[in-house]
Amino acid sequence: MRALVIDGPNINMLGIREPAIYGTQDYRALCELIRRAGAEAGFERTDHVQSNHEGDLVDAIQRALGAYDGIVINPAAYTHTSVAILDALKAVALPCVEVHISDVPAREAFRQVSYVRQACFATITGEGIQGYAHALDLLARRLSPGNAS
Amino acid sequence: MRALVIDGPNINMLGIREPAIYGTQDYRALCELIRRAGAEAGFERTDHVQSNHEGDLVDAIQRALGAYDGIVINPAAYTHTSVAILDALKAVALPCVEVHISDVPAREAFRQVSYVRQACFATITGEGIQGYAHALDLLARRLSPGNAS
Amino acid sequence: MRALVIDGPNINMLGIREPAIYGTQDYRALCELIRRAGAEAGFERTDHVQSNHEGDLVDAIQRALGAYDGIVINPAAYTHTSVAILDALKAVALPCVEVHISDVPAREAFRQVSYVRQACFATITGEGIQGYAHALDLLARRLSPGNAS
Amino acid sequence: MRALVIDGPNINMLGIREPAIYGTQDYRALCELIRRAGAEAGFERTDHVQSNHEGDLVDAIQRALGAYDGIVINPAAYTHTSVAILDALKAVALPCVEVHISDVPAREAFRQVSYVRQACFATITGEGIQGYAHALDLLARRLSPGNAS
Amino acid sequence: MRALVIDGPNINMLGIREPAIYGTQDYRALCELIRRAGAEAGFERTDHVQSNHEGDLVDAIQRALGAYDGIVINPAAYTHTSVAILDALKAVALPCVEVHISDVPAREAFRQVSYVRQACFATITGEGIQGYAHALDLLARRLSPGNAS
Amino acid sequence: MRALVIDGPNINMLGIREPAIYGTQDYRALCELIRRAGAEAGFERTDHVQSNHEGDLVDAIQRALGAYDGIVINPAAYTHTSVAILDALKAVALPCVEVHISDVPAREAFRQVSYVRQACFATITGEGIQGYAHALDLLARRLSPGNAS
Amino acid sequence: MRALVIDGPNINMLGIREPAIYGTQDYRALCELIRRAGAEAGFERTDHVQSNHEGDLVDAIQRALGAYDGIVINPAAYTHTSVAILDALKAVALPCVEVHISDVPAREAFRQVSYVRQACFATITGEGIQGYAHALDLLARRLSPGNAS
Amino acid sequence: MRALVIDGPNINMLGIREPAIYGTQDYRALCELIRRAGAEAGFERTDHVQSNHEGDLVDAIQRALGAYDGIVINPAAYTHTSVAILDALKAVALPCVEVHISDVPAREAFRQVSYVRQACFATITGEGIQGYAHALDLLARRLSPGNAS
Amino acid sequence: MRALVIDGPNINMLGIREPAIYGTQDYRALCELIRRAGAEAGFERTDHVQSNHEGDLVDAIQRALGAYDGIVINPAAYTHTSVAILDALKAVALPCVEVHISDVPAREAFRQVSYVRQACFATITGEGIQGYAHALDLLARRLSPGNAS
Amino acid sequence: MRALVIDGPNINMLGIREPAIYGTQDYRALCELIRRAGAEAGFERTDHVQSNHEGDLVDAIQRALGAYDGIVINPAAYTHTSVAILDALKAVALPCVEVHISDVPAREAFRQVSYVRQACFATITGEGIQGYAHALDLLARRLSPGNAS
Amino acid sequence: MRALVIDGPNINMLGIREPAIYGTQDYRALCELIRRAGAEAGFERTDHVQSNHEGDLVDAIQRALGAYDGIVINPAAYTHTSVAILDALKAVALPCVEVHISDVPAREAFRQVSYVRQACFATITGEGIQGYAHALDLLARRLSPGNAS
Amino acid sequence: MRALVIDGPNINMLGIREPAIYGTQDYRALCELIRRAGAEAGFERTDHVQSNHEGDLVDAIQRALGAYDGIVINPAAYTHTSVAILDALKAVALPCVEVHISDVPAREAFRQVSYVRQACFATITGEGIQGYAHALDLLARRLSPGNAS
Repeated sequence: MRALVIDGPNINMLGIREPAIYGTQDYRALCELIRRAGAEAGFERTDHVQSNHEGDLVDAIQRALGAYDGIVINPAAYTHTSVAILDALKAVALPCVEVHISDVPAREAFRQVSYVRQACFATITGEGIQGYAHALDLLARRLSPGNAS
Repeated sequence: MRALVIDGPNINMLGIREPAIYGTQDYRALCELIRRAGAEAGFERTDHVQSNHEGDLVDAIQRALGAYDGIVINPAAYTHTSVAILDALKAVALPCVEVHISDVPAREAFRQVSYVRQACFATITGEGIQGYAHALDLLARRLSPGNAS
Repeated sequence: MRALVIDGPNINMLGIREPAIYGTQDYRALCELIRRAGAEAGFERTDHVQSNHEGDLVDAIQRALGAYDGIVINPAAYTHTSVAILDALKAVALPCVEVHISDVPAREAFRQVSYVRQACFATITGEGIQGYAHALDLLARRLSPGNAS
Repeated sequence: MRALVIDGPNINMLGIREPAIYGTQDYRALCELIRRAGAEAGFERTDHVQSNHEGDLVDAIQRALGAYDGIVINPAAYTHTSVAILDALKAVALPCVEVHISDVPAREAFRQVSYVRQACFATITGEGIQGYAHALDLLARRLSPGNAS
Repeated sequence: MRALVIDGPNINMLGIREPAIYGTQDYRALCELIRRAGAEAGFERTDHVQSNHEGDLVDAIQRALGAYDGIVINPAAYTHTSVAILDALKAVALPCVEVHISDVPAREAFRQVSYVRQACFATITGEGIQGYAHALDLLARRLSPGNAS
Repeated sequence: MRALVIDGPNINMLGIREPAIYGTQDYRALCELIRRAGAEAGFERTDHVQSNHEGDLVDAIQRALGAYDGIVINPAAYTHTSVAILDALKAVALPCVEVHISDVPAREAFRQVSYVRQACFATITGEGIQGYAHALDLLARRLSPGNAS
Repeated sequence: MRALVIDGPNINMLGIREPAIYGTQDYRALCELIRRAGAEAGFERTDHVQSNHEGDLVDAIQRALGAYDGIVINPAAYTHTSVAILDALKAVALPCVEVHISDVPAREAFRQVSYVRQACFATITGEGIQGYAHALDLLARRLSPGNAS
Repeated sequence: MRALVIDGPNINMLGIREPAIYGTQDYRALCELIRRAGAEAGFERTDHVQSNHEGDLVDAIQRALGAYDGIVINPAAYTHTSVAILDALKAVALPCVEVHISDVPAREAFRQVSYVRQACFATITGEGIQGYAHALDLLARRLSPGNAS
Repeated sequence: MRALVIDGPNINMLGIREPAIYGTQDYRALCELIRRAGAEAGFERTDHVQSNHEGDLVDAIQRALGAYDGIVINPAAYTHTSVAILDALKAVALPCVEVHISDVPAREAFRQVSYVRQACFATITGEGIQGYAHALDLLARRLSPGNAS
Repeated sequence: MRALVIDGPNINMLGIREPAIYGTQDYRALCELIRRAGAEAGFERTDHVQSNHEGDLVDAIQRALGAYDGIVINPAAYTHTSVAILDALKAVALPCVEVHISDVPAREAFRQVSYVRQACFATITGEGIQGYAHALDLLARRLSPGNAS
Repeated sequence: MRALVIDGPNINMLGIREPAIYGTQDYRALCELIRRAGAEAGFERTDHVQSNHEGDLVDAIQRALGAYDGIVINPAAYTHTSVAILDALKAVALPCVEVHISDVPAREAFRQVSYVRQACFATITGEGIQGYAHALDLLARRLSPGNAS
Repeated sequence: MRALVIDGPNINMLGIREPAIYGTQDYRALCELIRRAGAEAGFERTDHVQSNHEGDLVDAIQRALGAYDGIVINPAAYTHTSVAILDALKAVALPCVEVHISDVPAREAFRQVSYVRQACFATITGEGIQGYAHALDLLARRLSPGNAS
């Protein structure tokens, strides 16, 4: 059972970027948390990619087909504008969880739109980086044998 | 550690109501699943209420204060129209997960609005009744010691 | 052949409430008219419920399943805001006629929305309380043998 | 007691046009049904006109004044765009029922507007061609002596 | 100097149609007024056409090219929906005055749109049928020698 | 001279609910303030009801007819969604003042709509619970003899 | 304790202007009522200014700082368009009541916007000129010692 | 028979201001044209005021009551934003013609709104300054004896 | 293999109508081009109809069933308003190409809507009358044997 | 005569991606079809690029200047969001055809916007991969000598 | 080289008005800063006017023609509502910089509209009163010889 | 003191791309101007990057942290669609000036949105490439010692 965690633009600035919104833990802490939480959730392998390029995220999703059993994605700013990422997720048709570090419903109107949500079975927001652990666990349960949805 | 599961209008018609959308498992199966999944997630007690009355749902949320550690809610039709349920969830300020049986993003435009989402840390949709199990597990992890968000 | 007539909020104020809009005949006259028109339309039994509670209307619709062959409903103010009543009507899937006493198309913009209409095969407006007689007759004809729609 | 049934554009294509939406019975069957249902509803005379021209429909409505006691109209595509037909119906001020073969509330957004509805006392949708019989019956009852609205 | 007066749908119902809005003078009175007012404004010839057909109005406008020096038009219901009439007026590029019998700004929202206005140098509303006399006079002055606009 | 004060959903959570928005005084303090302010304003009797149920609020308004001379209402979350409460207030046609504890104009967009306002002669917002005293006083003056409006 | 009453454009036309909407009492009666009601409410001094100029109203509000303890304002037509008056009221930060003679919620859509409301603790509408007396009384109570809001 | 011509902001810049839109004739030419056209239309007196102040235009309209028989107004930029001018025109209730030098329907979206139009019986656009002559003539005809509208 | 070319309102004014937008070639040139291009594309027969009447266009489309293998249509002004033409095209279900002489995307907002597009497999704009030749060629290829789509 | 065919994100997933919408033919088949159809349409050279990166598509369009005579583009998901691709197409100003495999007008609302359309002389939708052949043919005809548009 | 600095309504309240938004420096400090910054930027003369009257601002802009080489304007509340100021700036056609003290993009939705921006070559926001110095410098550079734009 | 100038998609096509909108000076001239203007504004170093890739622009902004003291950015087409660039600018929190070559307020509606503006203290539009020199100078003044904002 393998999981791919995909992070969108500016997530690599964590700890530097607007701490009042995104918290004070840095990107290194996030990488560590993902590694550890993936293992705890029972994944044999938990890979993690980050890019500021919308096309890179689409490429990563496409390559996940056959290589991973599910995806956890934080599309960051592309959440609100990218139809391409939505189409990629639909194309590979893997179980997917959407995660956001900040409390998105409490932010600007233009952040209320999520194209990606249409291809995800769950969304986690406002939990800080801990939300990734929740997302991985949720994905693991979805993939466990005997869980026919 | 105690959880309250709250179901909104017409969930009691499960199995009778539009099977193409809501599946063929009936309400009894849902009740059983919630009981079992609550225990598996580690809750000492998992109570379950259902009502067709918006005011009953508000009452239930208010009474949860002090009696439960977290809430899983499927507000059904009131998801899209009830500011009162949102205000109640904000008033008690307990961790809350929103769950929907059907794939809401694929349905009518008037079902795309969710007032309740603003008071929930996670949303699960389109998983059928299995989504309640995921929601309870997610809530349990949120409440486990050492999980500071 | 049995019919259930369901009246929403403030219909019990008929005769008192804004006579320029709703007419001068009172609620008692409406009850009498429904009883008589149901019989004339050929129903063995015509029951009538009124409530100011959205949840009561949902409950009444759910209980109609198995007990009645069709529904005539005037959801009054809930016409414009209730997704729960729509979902209930879809869940029981009985033939249903929507009726309004006043001439709704000539009133405020917020009264132009009708969720309930999506689950009804006919709508009657602006006929005063006589509209209930028309609705019952229409329902009876729909239910008569040989009328395959 | 005389009724005029008016059909708008493409109704003459019935049976050929999108059977999944409009059913498999053809235009000839509709003409026959109208003739028979008019007699059953108690009309001495039930005339029927169809045209693809908005202006023809306006002409027909104007000529109904003095010649008929009521109108059943299916304005088809002109339902959603014709202010001229609405004005004509208001000008002659005859009792009028709007009928649609398909389940209009379940179709495209641009079909949700109905100008004509503002001049009709009832609307029947989604009953297939049987809806014309219901409409004629409803009109007959409206016109019967002792029915003061 | 010749003028063409073009009347749209239902204007021929004048005197019959909603007298509270359109007044009590009938269509015959309007025809007479146009004939007399045209002469008084100094036109050698003032022709008048009325039709319920949008296409007829387009035809009439096209035929005006070379035959008339200006147009007075009351497109009635087509005011609010007809791009074809606008395009015809632009094609012939004759001076044109728009006239409405009723006080359009005080009526329904859907009557506030006027495509035709974009091709007219003046608009007269709410003057009853007397507005046609004003419109013809305005057109005459526009066409008088020495009036370079 | 008798007044009825009606409180909508979650007002009973006062002091617990979001103190940054609703203040730190609790529901008991509100009940006391209403009792005292009613007497000071000159009412012989000032009754107070609170409910989380929209239908209860409608019932309460209907029962006020004949029993009270005026109403002070804080519909809370139902302010923004309830046509039923508006219709009830119009039905009983008693003088009514709308009151809100928080500074509603400074809050979310969905709280800017007020159906109830259409049936009230005054609105008081952002005064904390003191607003109820002002509302009662205003109602008393409206009802005092010699005050013909 | 001193109050300033500010009237916007066309209020000086009272008695002349649309009596069906604004009543038959003239501007002189309003001036007299304000003087008398101010005294009755307990103000030592109640000044009254009226202007058709938006800038004059802004000037008056600015000059109120230090000279008056509160403001009653009827911005009339500027209610719906003036951000400048809103900014002025916020700048001086005096307690303020908004008053309208007519029943604004029952009028045109463009009159439903009120910028000024965001800087007022109460709004009174549809009471005729008597509304000014109510507004002054409400202001007096707000300013009375022991009334901490 | 006396007419008042009222010009709004920046009309005094005519000839300087954007000649591609407003033409090359200057303000002096406009003053002269108004004087001459007023006389030709049969007015004993034709006064002309221009101001950049919205309040001045309101003052001028109010003072016209009793002093003039009708108004020709070019509110320029205030056309699109001034409810105060609309209210003033309704208050004095004199016959009024709206005139614009440029072809307003062909300009920016925010220029398509006209509050003033609701109080005018005619609108003239895109005729350059010659439009004022037409407007005065139209007003004269409206005021001529025997012209009962 | 036979093609029908259908032209909507005002296309017959080509060469006269707004040459800056529609070019200087006249309607006769268009007729000639269609005849020649149809032959070159390999059609045995290429008929051409033009009408200013929406109903005529609907009639023509209906009559094409059985008589032609495909349609090229320029609905002109009816592009933006006609649901009837859309319904007719769907009823006959022939392959159809939409063509516009002018560069529609660069024109007014109300010309950006195209109902007809929903029933066409291709759209050609801004090519002048040459666009008809391209459209016929495209249709011919679609109809050629071995082209299974 | 050389053509460049540009494919946007996820087109490389053809055959894998949602076959109900995009068909069962895979990307290899598309590459082959483009090669062959280009030759048949008479192009000496038909190159083909695909990328998931919006910037790559912009780069490809820029490089086409001088290297190709025309472009066929399927921007896929970027159709609905990319102003950059529109600007690139306008910058190089080569003749361009837009193509979509699926029947875009029948899909979600957010897919109804096309920025790219403003720079294309033709659009082909819903023809499956065969649409590329039609597009290339159309481009070839546009570029053929003697075809002056 | 001469500059005119124009301040709109309530700027004279600086230091008194909402310090959290506009800062603590008062109007006197602003006047001083403008005087000094104008000199430093190289202007021989820097005049400064402030008014709460929209008409005064229009007058000031008109008088600038011939007297000044450029304008720095902070229209304050009129930014969002004044077409008249926009028209005046276009009429005089002097180089103009728009300045705002507060961070306008972070404020209410109704402050996001700026009519004035359409006539300015630069906008400076959120710099406090220091923004005026930047604006004057920018204007000076624009006016310096050798700077052809 | 070091500045980074960032150019978005298609700016490298300057001189080739739509000269009526962007001017005739080419990209080489822009590079030269930026180099010279940076030096004149007092920057020790002025680097310049251009890319058609949204992700490259985000990368460049992130790398500016620690390497530059301020940014001048022309996001071109990404101005209107990129939340990612906005987030990156907020993350690095360097002083930033937005510049556009063309007169954006005079262009299409979809170009009126600017996400980037929310992170910039100044905007310069419609100055051609000279706007970059102004922007650099403005940035230099912002960064000069003694300039506390």
